[in-house]
Amino acid sequence: MAKIATVITDMFEDVEYTDPAQAFKEAGHDVVTIEKEKGKEVTGKNKDATVKIDQGIDDVKPGDFDALFIPGGMSPDQLRADDRFVKFAKSFMDDMKPVFAICHGPQLLITAKTLEGRKATGFKSIQVDMEYAGAELVDQEVAVCQNQLVTSRQPDDIPAFNREALKLL
Amino acid sequence: MAKIATVITDMFEDVEYTDPAQAFKEAGHDVVTIEKEKGKEVTGKNKDATVKIDQGIDDVKPGDFDALFIPGGMSPDQLRADDRFVKFAKSFMDDMKPVFAICHGPQLLITAKTLEGRKATGFKSIQVDMEYAGAELVDQEVAVCQNQLVTSRQPDDIPAFNREALKLL
Repeated sequence: MAKIATVITDMFEDVEYTDPAQAFKEAGHDVVTIEKEKGKEVTGKNKDATVKIDQGIDDVKPGDFDALFIPGGMSPDQLRADDRFVKFAKSFMDDMKPVFAICHGPQLLITAKTLEGRKATGFKSIQVDMEYAGAELVDQEVAVCQNQLVTSRQPDDIPAFNREALKLL
Repeated sequence: MAKIATVITDMFEDVEYTDPAQAFKEAGHDVVTIEKEKGKEVTGKNKDATVKIDQGIDDVKPGDFDALFIPGGMSPDQLRADDRFVKFAKSFMDDMKPVFAICHGPQLLITAKTLEGRKATGFKSIQVDMEYAGAELVDQEVAVCQNQLVTSRQPDDIPAFNREALKLL
């Protein structure tokens, strides 16, 4: 069973964490939440979900995990202002480990400069950013690139996102 | 005296609207707030400021204004998901009218594809996006490009931002 690093902070899109996390757990995988500090609680932008942080970013190594999950909302833009999260995400992309990013999640991958030539999608507002970053942008419910990178646009796309992510675990 | 179109929605960075707006008004200029709908109130992310919307985007033309002001926070990313705001901002850039964008404000200018070859700065998290969009990125309190585009990074930079913006009005 896979150990999935989940980078998340306040103002995440609630269902973009809760739904995939539930699907991953039901399939027997381990979802490990990572933010700046272990033990703190982060809250979704709709205040429907709070998430207890399992590990601080300084206490983990990419090598400890099999995959990376980046929920959307206003969480990824905050995470990418912290170089530790950018470096952490870059490592999964460089090592071609499964990476699942939904909505604004690809923002972290842009800042890590890892989208060049990669087929991907994302929330409407960041699609131009993704194109400028060299992604081969598609506007569809899920994009799977080289059996490694799974991206989706918005909450409606979650069933397709979960389905394709689970295939790679 | 100048008529300044101010595009703004919920979750704006409070002081990045209130401080420049006050400086512009004290200098005798007219600050006109624009969102989807006239009469609604939008609230800053710190809940320190609420702003009454003067005009709906469908009721204004770029030709009605002398300059454009884009406060930061999580407002610009929402505005750029609406093509009407992207087109509105593009018009000011194309016509070389003064444009003032702080923090996440340049996100709207990225989506409008108007930053290529322009000297500019922005909030740390969007600096890579700006570089990918072709901006000549500088990391300083204010960047002034061709006596037209004034950009700043964050609330600390507001005094420099106001000073350079006022010079162009």
